[in-house]
Amino acid sequence: MSEQTGHRWVVEWHSPESGMLSVVEQILYSGRTKYQEVDVMRNRDYGKMLVLDGKLQSSTSDEFIYHEMLVHPALITQGRPRDVLIIGGGEGATLREVLRYNSVGRAVMVDIDGEVVEICEKYLPEMHRGSFHDPRASVIIDDGRKFLMNAKDQFDAVLVDATDPIEGGPSRLLYTVEFYELVRSRLRDGGVVATQGTSTFYNAKTFALIMNTMGRVFPHVRGYQASIPSYISDWGFVVGSLGEDPAGISPEEAGRRARELGIAGLKYYEPARHPYYFWLPPYARAMVEEEKGVSRDEEPVSVY
Amino acid sequence: MSEQTGHRWVVEWHSPESGMLSVVEQILYSGRTKYQEVDVMRNRDYGKMLVLDGKLQSSTSDEFIYHEMLVHPALITQGRPRDVLIIGGGEGATLREVLRYNSVGRAVMVDIDGEVVEICEKYLPEMHRGSFHDPRASVIIDDGRKFLMNAKDQFDAVLVDATDPIEGGPSRLLYTVEFYELVRSRLRDGGVVATQGTSTFYNAKTFALIMNTMGRVFPHVRGYQASIPSYISDWGFVVGSLGEDPAGISPEEAGRRARELGIAGLKYYEPARHPYYFWLPPYARAMVEEEKGVSRDEEPVSVY
Amino acid sequence: MSEQTGHRWVVEWHSPESGMLSVVEQILYSGRTKYQEVDVMRNRDYGKMLVLDGKLQSSTSDEFIYHEMLVHPALITQGRPRDVLIIGGGEGATLREVLRYNSVGRAVMVDIDGEVVEICEKYLPEMHRGSFHDPRASVIIDDGRKFLMNAKDQFDAVLVDATDPIEGGPSRLLYTVEFYELVRSRLRDGGVVATQGTSTFYNAKTFALIMNTMGRVFPHVRGYQASIPSYISDWGFVVGSLGEDPAGISPEEAGRRARELGIAGLKYYEPARHPYYFWLPPYARAMVEEEKGVSRDEEPVSVY
Amino acid sequence: MSEQTGHRWVVEWHSPESGMLSVVEQILYSGRTKYQEVDVMRNRDYGKMLVLDGKLQSSTSDEFIYHEMLVHPALITQGRPRDVLIIGGGEGATLREVLRYNSVGRAVMVDIDGEVVEICEKYLPEMHRGSFHDPRASVIIDDGRKFLMNAKDQFDAVLVDATDPIEGGPSRLLYTVEFYELVRSRLRDGGVVATQGTSTFYNAKTFALIMNTMGRVFPHVRGYQASIPSYISDWGFVVGSLGEDPAGISPEEAGRRARELGIAGLKYYEPARHPYYFWLPPYARAMVEEEKGVSRDEEPVSVY
Repeated sequence: MSEQTGHRWVVEWHSPESGMLSVVEQILYSGRTKYQEVDVMRNRDYGKMLVLDGKLQSSTSDEFIYHEMLVHPALITQGRPRDVLIIGGGEGATLREVLRYNSVGRAVMVDIDGEVVEICEKYLPEMHRGSFHDPRASVIIDDGRKFLMNAKDQFDAVLVDATDPIEGGPSRLLYTVEFYELVRSRLRDGGVVATQGTSTFYNAKTFALIMNTMGRVFPHVRGYQASIPSYISDWGFVVGSLGEDPAGISPEEAGRRARELGIAGLKYYEPARHPYYFWLPPYARAMVEEEKGVSRDEEPVSVY
Repeated sequence: MSEQTGHRWVVEWHSPESGMLSVVEQILYSGRTKYQEVDVMRNRDYGKMLVLDGKLQSSTSDEFIYHEMLVHPALITQGRPRDVLIIGGGEGATLREVLRYNSVGRAVMVDIDGEVVEICEKYLPEMHRGSFHDPRASVIIDDGRKFLMNAKDQFDAVLVDATDPIEGGPSRLLYTVEFYELVRSRLRDGGVVATQGTSTFYNAKTFALIMNTMGRVFPHVRGYQASIPSYISDWGFVVGSLGEDPAGISPEEAGRRARELGIAGLKYYEPARHPYYFWLPPYARAMVEEEKGVSRDEEPVSVY
Repeated sequence: MSEQTGHRWVVEWHSPESGMLSVVEQILYSGRTKYQEVDVMRNRDYGKMLVLDGKLQSSTSDEFIYHEMLVHPALITQGRPRDVLIIGGGEGATLREVLRYNSVGRAVMVDIDGEVVEICEKYLPEMHRGSFHDPRASVIIDDGRKFLMNAKDQFDAVLVDATDPIEGGPSRLLYTVEFYELVRSRLRDGGVVATQGTSTFYNAKTFALIMNTMGRVFPHVRGYQASIPSYISDWGFVVGSLGEDPAGISPEEAGRRARELGIAGLKYYEPARHPYYFWLPPYARAMVEEEKGVSRDEEPVSVY
Repeated sequence: MSEQTGHRWVVEWHSPESGMLSVVEQILYSGRTKYQEVDVMRNRDYGKMLVLDGKLQSSTSDEFIYHEMLVHPALITQGRPRDVLIIGGGEGATLREVLRYNSVGRAVMVDIDGEVVEICEKYLPEMHRGSFHDPRASVIIDDGRKFLMNAKDQFDAVLVDATDPIEGGPSRLLYTVEFYELVRSRLRDGGVVATQGTSTFYNAKTFALIMNTMGRVFPHVRGYQASIPSYISDWGFVVGSLGEDPAGISPEEAGRRARELGIAGLKYYEPARHPYYFWLPPYARAMVEEEKGVSRDEEPVSVY
């Protein structure tokens, strides 16, 4: 506004009726890949940000909340992950969290947009922290669903770190019954799946629908929320398990597993809190209980 | 934008570098009192909103989170409140939550701005739900701090439901050591104080400072957060207790108290979760531990 | 942004891809009539503003440009107006300009929205300056086109001071061949019509189309522009004449007429400049020449 | 807003109380030079845009208005320019207009920011159209005022195509009495100076002050305006002449000179309109007459 408050102002729309105005201090990269528009920007509130098609994906100030909460509730539930598949995850930060586990022998990340992966590797070292070059990691540029279809391998966990389901978008078929059936077919006994679940405020219905949809395929399904400042609303996650109920693991047991697996020093996820994460407030539980819909390939859920 | 998305767009600034753009469907009231600009608006995301000096105070969509979390952690900790003082609280919703307690014989609300109270009574019945006319309630138009100074009465709980401390604003001296000393002097044994604690994202330092400041006066002080969608960030609260440690009350004990006091059917606060609310994530704990400052009358804390 | 720069910020959209953010100092009125949303606001750049359906209609800082330029090029061209019809013109400022002519015996203003007229009379006295109560003025609440259809009277000038043609809007049929034919049928010999012509930047095509359309009905048609700061783009007007070519009147002759008719002390229109107003810059002339379309009732022109 | 309307939205502030929100289709370049932030962007309304420190400088959709109106009123007034000096003008478009004159033997452009010139050469060929490589052109990277001080050469015209005078900005001393005296000392008999004069709406006082200031040094000074859509307000220019009064040249004489000098096919400036450009509307004349201030080195004028 005044000279001091910076020159480059941008808007991120959350819905056709609301958006966030903010200063950008620096545009590190701006371009278009085969799949999407990509911007890497920096501002004072959030640090460096990865923006795809105008939507903030991660910021260095709080990506730890998102990535820890996508990965650890699932992997601690599984208990001893060896082979982990990540669908999406271009920033390399989900991969980074997975590689913390001393039990992990192989982490495969399948992202559809190789250009985004390269841009992240170059401009966002604070996020991947070299994870792309860990000998246990392999990065495959492919459609995640197609990869799963053709995969011969079995996994202990599948982590879906994809963009929101948007009409015409690349991630739309990563939230359907058919997709979760495919995931289940590639999981070992006791395997888990976790997915980001969209904004539980702007897209509460979508979050509930994803829980419902996964519930058709996995015996134990739990939704949970974390407040991620740069997303300016609570964010939802959903975990499905073929083995234990994620909410049935006691703080003590979660702590024991974390120690054994070498998980320490996280900034958001705490084993001592493990089962409480799955405790949605009453109004959110009510909302989830009301939702009866299921997302199917022929009519997949999508956010605005 | 298009005809369908509405005509009246407004911006709420969170800092000199960021703000929220959104459609307003209706402006129910717009004016200026002796103390501040007041707007009552409605939009699709949040319902009816009370806006003071351009800052959203409450919205009908989620005020229950804010008001339940300001009132119940404190009153359940106190255990059997009879006389409760509310400082601020123009909407009447804090009063409404206090009046749920069958133990409460008298609830005194002291708000500096009588015009705001009248506007809320007229335009926001969804919030006060008649609480202003409860025989146990009295509404006094006065400066909260001055009222406390002159008060001869003793209270079991003091709830500070005021605007953020802003340079030159009416609430600036409601967050200082001197203020909390005054509060303590009016509390009965086992009494509690609770205050809103500003945004834990945009004003994390202020939240930490308020915890620190209250800690100079009260033996037990606990900070906690709740994600309030319309505030677009986690919101902080701080409770201080002369009696029990708020985090030391077990889920079972909190449940027992709630039943006895007639507290049921809340939409956010759950007795079964009581002690867990005070569990800040590691990164927030670190931030609080770093803060050594204390807010004093001579140099009070203020948000941007 | 900072406390000093004001609390109420609004956005006016000019297209689905651009809009103006600005501070509002005061909302004097906000409501919805049978036809539209009405806001009367004040800001520092523009003074008091009338806003209909989110679009600025007039501001006290520069309405003189719009209203002088709608009225005087046409009436000076006609030369001695006695009976003048205004369609729209809720603010009363077009009426005010018409009543400057000592030759005018009757000025009829027909506005579809009586509530808007009342709001303007109450909140915008700087605009109408009492014109509604001039004994020569009559205000009729009716659809302008319907009024013309039923009118038995003849006029020397018809001034169309209506909102932009918008799909579904009340003014859409005030810019078609059929409408101009109706106008012509109610004009005396030598009569003139003038209309606002939308933004020549954002809706250049619409401006050209209106010129074209009026050209099917009137022997002399001239488009002209004036830069109106609060409209943040050049604004177009179109005048049609059954008598003289508006651009054929010399500065001297325009000056002579103005003196005789009592027109002096205007802030924008100058008789000495009369013919030059109709001189579009080459790029605008080219744009007008390219346009071959005509707006008809069955498929009327509309801006975005 | 919706997917179709584009993802990258930016804001350009015009004052601390207003700004323009718009979609950016593409960011071609974004960086910081020694002197300023530079962005080259494209949007649907304006085409490619050069933005310095968050302020739009030129857009391919309407730069012809700005550059034609900066150059031709002055050079047609001078009548036969041989040596022309441009101060600023990084886009190369002022140079382009100057090189249209068959009388011009040497056009020297002095811009302080060589990086901006390089960026324009690379990203904005539509603007310079090769003018940087014309054998008559020389581009010097230097402070314009310093260059003038050391210059031994005489010029027929000096064109100041610089950013607005801003506190602390590089152009602040290009609008003072001392600067115009320096310019005059380097002009041949009959020489002219022309400068952009800031927004006549947002900075009307600055425009008037520049006219006043130049009037202390040049015998003939004329201000004029052109409406430049992307600047969203009328823009001011000021021309000073040691020879003829710019407003005293008849349309016929201007036409004769243009033909002789090879000036034809412009999109905005027309010789036939030459003297009328200097005709400010009454309200603007009044504003200019009221201004008594003069900008001096010791206390130079600056826009907000």
